[in-house]
Amino acid sequence: MCGIFGITDNKEASRLTYIGLFALQHRGQESAGIASESNRKLVYYNSMGLVNEVFNESIIAGLKGRNSIGHVRYSTTGSSDVSNAQPLYFNSKFGEIAISHNGNIINSGELKAELRNLGAIFQSTTDSEIIVHLISRHKSHDLIEALKENLPKLKGSYSFLFLTKKELIAARDPYGFRPLFYGKKDNSYVFASETCAIDAVKAKLIGEIEPGEIAVARSGKLKKIRFSNSKKYSRCIFEQVYFARPDSFFCGYSVQSARYEIGRLLAMEYNIKADIVSGVPDSGTAYALGFSKQANIEYKTVFMRNRYSQRSFIQPKQSAREFTAEMKLSPIKDVIKGNSLILIDDSLVRGTTSQKIVKSLKDCGAKKVIMLIASPPVKFPCVYGIDTARKEELIANKLSIKEICKFIGADELHYLSLDNLINGCGRGDINFCHACFSGNYPEK
Amino acid sequence: MCGIFGITDNKEASRLTYIGLFALQHRGQESAGIASESNRKLVYYNSMGLVNEVFNESIIAGLKGRNSIGHVRYSTTGSSDVSNAQPLYFNSKFGEIAISHNGNIINSGELKAELRNLGAIFQSTTDSEIIVHLISRHKSHDLIEALKENLPKLKGSYSFLFLTKKELIAARDPYGFRPLFYGKKDNSYVFASETCAIDAVKAKLIGEIEPGEIAVARSGKLKKIRFSNSKKYSRCIFEQVYFARPDSFFCGYSVQSARYEIGRLLAMEYNIKADIVSGVPDSGTAYALGFSKQANIEYKTVFMRNRYSQRSFIQPKQSAREFTAEMKLSPIKDVIKGNSLILIDDSLVRGTTSQKIVKSLKDCGAKKVIMLIASPPVKFPCVYGIDTARKEELIANKLSIKEICKFIGADELHYLSLDNLINGCGRGDINFCHACFSGNYPEK
Amino acid sequence: MCGIFGITDNKEASRLTYIGLFALQHRGQESAGIASESNRKLVYYNSMGLVNEVFNESIIAGLKGRNSIGHVRYSTTGSSDVSNAQPLYFNSKFGEIAISHNGNIINSGELKAELRNLGAIFQSTTDSEIIVHLISRHKSHDLIEALKENLPKLKGSYSFLFLTKKELIAARDPYGFRPLFYGKKDNSYVFASETCAIDAVKAKLIGEIEPGEIAVARSGKLKKIRFSNSKKYSRCIFEQVYFARPDSFFCGYSVQSARYEIGRLLAMEYNIKADIVSGVPDSGTAYALGFSKQANIEYKTVFMRNRYSQRSFIQPKQSAREFTAEMKLSPIKDVIKGNSLILIDDSLVRGTTSQKIVKSLKDCGAKKVIMLIASPPVKFPCVYGIDTARKEELIANKLSIKEICKFIGADELHYLSLDNLINGCGRGDINFCHACFSGNYPEK
Amino acid sequence: MCGIFGITDNKEASRLTYIGLFALQHRGQESAGIASESNRKLVYYNSMGLVNEVFNESIIAGLKGRNSIGHVRYSTTGSSDVSNAQPLYFNSKFGEIAISHNGNIINSGELKAELRNLGAIFQSTTDSEIIVHLISRHKSHDLIEALKENLPKLKGSYSFLFLTKKELIAARDPYGFRPLFYGKKDNSYVFASETCAIDAVKAKLIGEIEPGEIAVARSGKLKKIRFSNSKKYSRCIFEQVYFARPDSFFCGYSVQSARYEIGRLLAMEYNIKADIVSGVPDSGTAYALGFSKQANIEYKTVFMRNRYSQRSFIQPKQSAREFTAEMKLSPIKDVIKGNSLILIDDSLVRGTTSQKIVKSLKDCGAKKVIMLIASPPVKFPCVYGIDTARKEELIANKLSIKEICKFIGADELHYLSLDNLINGCGRGDINFCHACFSGNYPEK
Repeated sequence: MCGIFGITDNKEASRLTYIGLFALQHRGQESAGIASESNRKLVYYNSMGLVNEVFNESIIAGLKGRNSIGHVRYSTTGSSDVSNAQPLYFNSKFGEIAISHNGNIINSGELKAELRNLGAIFQSTTDSEIIVHLISRHKSHDLIEALKENLPKLKGSYSFLFLTKKELIAARDPYGFRPLFYGKKDNSYVFASETCAIDAVKAKLIGEIEPGEIAVARSGKLKKIRFSNSKKYSRCIFEQVYFARPDSFFCGYSVQSARYEIGRLLAMEYNIKADIVSGVPDSGTAYALGFSKQANIEYKTVFMRNRYSQRSFIQPKQSAREFTAEMKLSPIKDVIKGNSLILIDDSLVRGTTSQKIVKSLKDCGAKKVIMLIASPPVKFPCVYGIDTARKEELIANKLSIKEICKFIGADELHYLSLDNLINGCGRGDINFCHACFSGNYPEK
Repeated sequence: MCGIFGITDNKEASRLTYIGLFALQHRGQESAGIASESNRKLVYYNSMGLVNEVFNESIIAGLKGRNSIGHVRYSTTGSSDVSNAQPLYFNSKFGEIAISHNGNIINSGELKAELRNLGAIFQSTTDSEIIVHLISRHKSHDLIEALKENLPKLKGSYSFLFLTKKELIAARDPYGFRPLFYGKKDNSYVFASETCAIDAVKAKLIGEIEPGEIAVARSGKLKKIRFSNSKKYSRCIFEQVYFARPDSFFCGYSVQSARYEIGRLLAMEYNIKADIVSGVPDSGTAYALGFSKQANIEYKTVFMRNRYSQRSFIQPKQSAREFTAEMKLSPIKDVIKGNSLILIDDSLVRGTTSQKIVKSLKDCGAKKVIMLIASPPVKFPCVYGIDTARKEELIANKLSIKEICKFIGADELHYLSLDNLINGCGRGDINFCHACFSGNYPEK
Repeated sequence: MCGIFGITDNKEASRLTYIGLFALQHRGQESAGIASESNRKLVYYNSMGLVNEVFNESIIAGLKGRNSIGHVRYSTTGSSDVSNAQPLYFNSKFGEIAISHNGNIINSGELKAELRNLGAIFQSTTDSEIIVHLISRHKSHDLIEALKENLPKLKGSYSFLFLTKKELIAARDPYGFRPLFYGKKDNSYVFASETCAIDAVKAKLIGEIEPGEIAVARSGKLKKIRFSNSKKYSRCIFEQVYFARPDSFFCGYSVQSARYEIGRLLAMEYNIKADIVSGVPDSGTAYALGFSKQANIEYKTVFMRNRYSQRSFIQPKQSAREFTAEMKLSPIKDVIKGNSLILIDDSLVRGTTSQKIVKSLKDCGAKKVIMLIASPPVKFPCVYGIDTARKEELIANKLSIKEICKFIGADELHYLSLDNLINGCGRGDINFCHACFSGNYPEK
Repeated sequence: MCGIFGITDNKEASRLTYIGLFALQHRGQESAGIASESNRKLVYYNSMGLVNEVFNESIIAGLKGRNSIGHVRYSTTGSSDVSNAQPLYFNSKFGEIAISHNGNIINSGELKAELRNLGAIFQSTTDSEIIVHLISRHKSHDLIEALKENLPKLKGSYSFLFLTKKELIAARDPYGFRPLFYGKKDNSYVFASETCAIDAVKAKLIGEIEPGEIAVARSGKLKKIRFSNSKKYSRCIFEQVYFARPDSFFCGYSVQSARYEIGRLLAMEYNIKADIVSGVPDSGTAYALGFSKQANIEYKTVFMRNRYSQRSFIQPKQSAREFTAEMKLSPIKDVIKGNSLILIDDSLVRGTTSQKIVKSLKDCGAKKVIMLIASPPVKFPCVYGIDTARKEELIANKLSIKEICKFIGADELHYLSLDNLINGCGRGDINFCHACFSGNYPEK
């Protein structure tokens, strides 16, 4: 759960990176940073906070150069402090190098221990600097060669952007867990975690960096190199369920349209009637519109989201999460009162937010609350970078669906089946990682 | 365009005022402030910025006391600087007094000149301190008496909250231009610009402070005093059209429901067909849902709002407005492409935002864009506190509807009639100020 | 205990005011502010903190205009908050007016009560805005006339600078308690609390604004008007003893030279022998050098002042004072060890600092510590603006000299006689207020 | 030119480190930092700014633990940015390690290149992390062993403090270029660049960490280990001339006393007469007092230092240096006027400050200005950590003494001989590095 962005051969590289990161802000609000190549030297700036808090005109102006990479961070590993803010900067035998990473290296503990025994010293608690240590110890002085031989040593998920004085290098793990798209804007190559960031800088989407691929952008050219045989493509299905921005594209459809389709399948799976159908904003809305169409039940807005609140799922501390849940959703009483309601949410992880939502509806006089979840029960922790909580926090591990229904106070509770989710997401494309729902971890 | 909030007899007065102001944040993002009665002294803090930027735990903790008032400000008069941030604080013959004001005093120029000639000295460029000067010069040492005799000297719109060491006083102009609701929470009286703030602190709505009324909350009791004969009630209709939060109540219905109804009337007024109907977020959505129902055209989301952007209408500087317009709305391409669209917006003031929106839809491949405005053309400037721009900036003053349609690049453009707007807002209640549409200024 | 500065007819008015205030920083470290006339409007900025913390390049650049006044503040009356930071700004029948005040209005309580009864509303808790209220209520529309008639109503000490759109006006109370000098720099008139600030902006000193005088600087001309008959000139002698900067001039000699002379008189008054004479930095050094010359005892540095500490006397809170006393003076052990020492301090108010100093010397092995005070015992509180503490805190009110000597742990303690202090300060000029030593308050 | 401080076995370790750094503030004002061992983990905080700007109560409270090291930095190598602020933090095969370094590694270029070729990646541009890379690659898992074998690879000057989870380790280069003292406070060992910091925390000075020595403080015990044969002790003589705080001890005498003695020798070397002798504050004062005693010429203060200015020599940028020179020294005019003056400064590096000083005296009416420098001409750049400017900036390299005298505008200019400087500093102890004066670099 981070966002990465990069652009080459553009005299406004850092400014466009700023705009790209702003478009990826929903992927991480803890820290933001940009590194740029300026006059054969790397310069960088990162700090805790939102993109528009971290950067101002004079900082952007100072990040001169034609190639830039950036990062927004939500901590999955590593503690919440500024030494973990990315891009990370290093000076190695390949010269200066900056790195943005989205993903989670599963074997980081072993690799770090091994490297430390060989004399490596680490500056952060993230797993993102491991790859720089590995390549810096490689016999070759050819950076691409070093990457090709060392990336396969990493287990887990990674989409990387590397910035050197001469080039911008993108790399994606052999399963393609985490997204990495690229596009073109005049002579510039653009790389981003989501297509919405490519749109934001008015670039044209080309496609995805393929799993097991390195892409080197240098002097207006892009060269692709394969470092691993093709594995079964395993895109994180949770991107589609919750994480991605509705206007981003994923498997050929916009996320919004896929969610609409999933909502339609949900209506087909459960033939339920009610006065109104609605969604938990923001992600639930698209599911509810699809459901409304299929089930022929009127869609109405029952909750307003306070636009001055932060996204609840994504705040690191429990206390902050509770407070924002309090403040962020406001019920529309006269729409709710006396009606039976179908309310659709994208997923149900801990159950605490759903509990508050149902209570709020009942307090407003809802006759009946039917909670529908547009994905299966989350029973397995994600090891590839989505912070779905530890296993013991997952309510579906502890309670039956009936018990969860009781816990959240709803009259009914139903989950979408995994098959329907996969069908809705991909419409034929079935190359997803759905380990959080199924327990099938692709690497195992 | 400001928000005011007050609460009495509560040991968490300033904390609840913080929550109330947070719920009113959409009414003003320039400055925020709170004044409290602490141990027979007033304390206060205000600063430029959003509510959650201005206040932190230690500032709130310092604002002890059982009675508090607060204010969020968007500058209609007065320059954008901190000396205009409210609550304003004074020390007068009535002792310490703090004041929160929503509205616009039309005769402030004359009154200030007159008062200056009598020796008054002003500390801010707002019109809000005039009333304190007037009452401080009144012969009586009875504050209520002084208010009763001096409030009628003010022309224009005002909802006031006054805080003294002993009491909290609310007052509303004889036309009731700007809203002022009140409610109760245990022994506490709560006052707020919108009902959503009364909900936010879990208080129970009682009703409105009537036009021409003073309400004095003291020691758990509320006493109402009339300072002016009843005038024709003239609630600002633009609150309903654009300004108020969807979950607030206005004339007995939630703002969201009224907008839905207006959307329905819009569909009846214009019998238009298209593939999809959608709204400009956030306010346009409710209109579009009502239209969808009545016209039997499917509602789909075509624009996502970036939740990290500020509201465009409300930023004081043109340049900032342009930048945020750029960043805040993202089109869902595969919903738009190849379809004819009806897009509904709440109002059309300058036309520049609509122009960008239509262009964005066309760029995404919309076959046809029909722009519907859920209110009549804005032809007259507001003198009562809504910053709809100066007369020469109002596009409906310069161009015909046909010309505006061409300017914004739409295939069709239609406005709702005033009668339908009034019907939709009030469903029988016709006591609105609609001067911005009709030119009928109630006071004239 | 404040510093004021003003300059006219200079295109770098605010920048030079910044430099002037920087030179007056020792007179107040709590807040700093500047007001400027810019294009027929007043602009101002003030904040808590040191001059170089409060202002930066962009703030100074924003304070355009050819006439400016400034202020550094140490709170004598009024609480420590930003609403008391000066210059204060008002809009009155005389138009915009900003004011900087050094001094203490004794009858402020009565005047404020009276003014409040007449309808005045006060924005701060300082006594500095009283004069603006008085003149604003004067029948005349002539500002100078209004000042002439109303300044005599103020009792106590005041040096004022007023800035309007057209002119800069200086005024000094009829006794001249607080200093106010003026000079010229090309076509600009410069006003300042001390001559060091006039030097700092490279202006040429002309003299003092006389007691009971108003000076109006307008369009390159200075006009002087008398508003009160001449009283006995009563310059605050404590300026000389402690407060003024050594390079400032006072009664025709530099403060440093006068302190040297006082040190010489101290040596003549007490014929004491010791191995070394030294002073408590910074003010004690000059006295010690004069003493050394007269008594023919070698001067050596025994204490170093830490330049990163704040002045102890001048911090509002006791706890902060203790901590800084800890950190700010470092003894030179090998100069102290085994020697008998004469240590000279400017004054002894509470005795707590002296106690620490003597202990420190003894801990370093001083054979004998003779404490000499270059002024008489402080027995009476100052009502004219020096914060010498309340009567019950003055140690000389509670203990005999012998007892004080014991309290501070010295072997001997002697004070300079008032006659010698007056002689040393003025060398013939005897127009001082020495009420803190003698109890002779000039106004009584 | 940095200051380092460490303390062991004390529950207020970070607070005492704060106080120690405050006492060493004159050694570096660019950044400050503290690392602490807290509950078997290292925590650290560093930032740009002065000690009392960087730290506040809550940061200090967060730096729990019984062992702490700290650092104040003035950049000699490495750019002025926060990634160079120390203590530096690493995670290596020895576990967590933090490091504070005072000195300059001459062969850092070669070592870094070599290490990079072996796969090392550097996080900062300082030379301080080289040693951590070296030891991390050492075969042994014994940290002390690794230090013993690798410290000899460093050329140049270094006083190091290393903090691990278990111990605090001090090390000093074989020549002892940069100072490193230690002392004891109850069960705590204290390490510091100057004795004044040991005094500041009320510890008792024991002595110096010897050149070529490692000292390991662990569980209340101190173990010393030699990693290099004794070289000729080469303490930096510029510490005595200018850098060290007057109350610190160096070669058995306080710096202040040694400067007094040097002043006496200066008077013996040049038999010059004048009306007054004075010093350029702060360091010149002690020399002038010694001169005054020997030459029997009265010492008077002719310049006041503004205590709100920063030390001029030590600001990295030329423009800032000029501005502070403007503001920091104020002449006492009536002491200067009509007199012939001897003015003593510690050293003369570029000549620009002296030029301003002499001009200021002449402008005040000095009859004659004789400039005496309490050290020889600086002709050679320092490679061991004192920022005396590059060779081409050293005025004594470009001009004869006569020409320098003319350049600065003095009537006479004389330098102390190197022999007298050495005699004055050490009184018999001649183990100094005086390469900046003599060109004799000890390592060559």
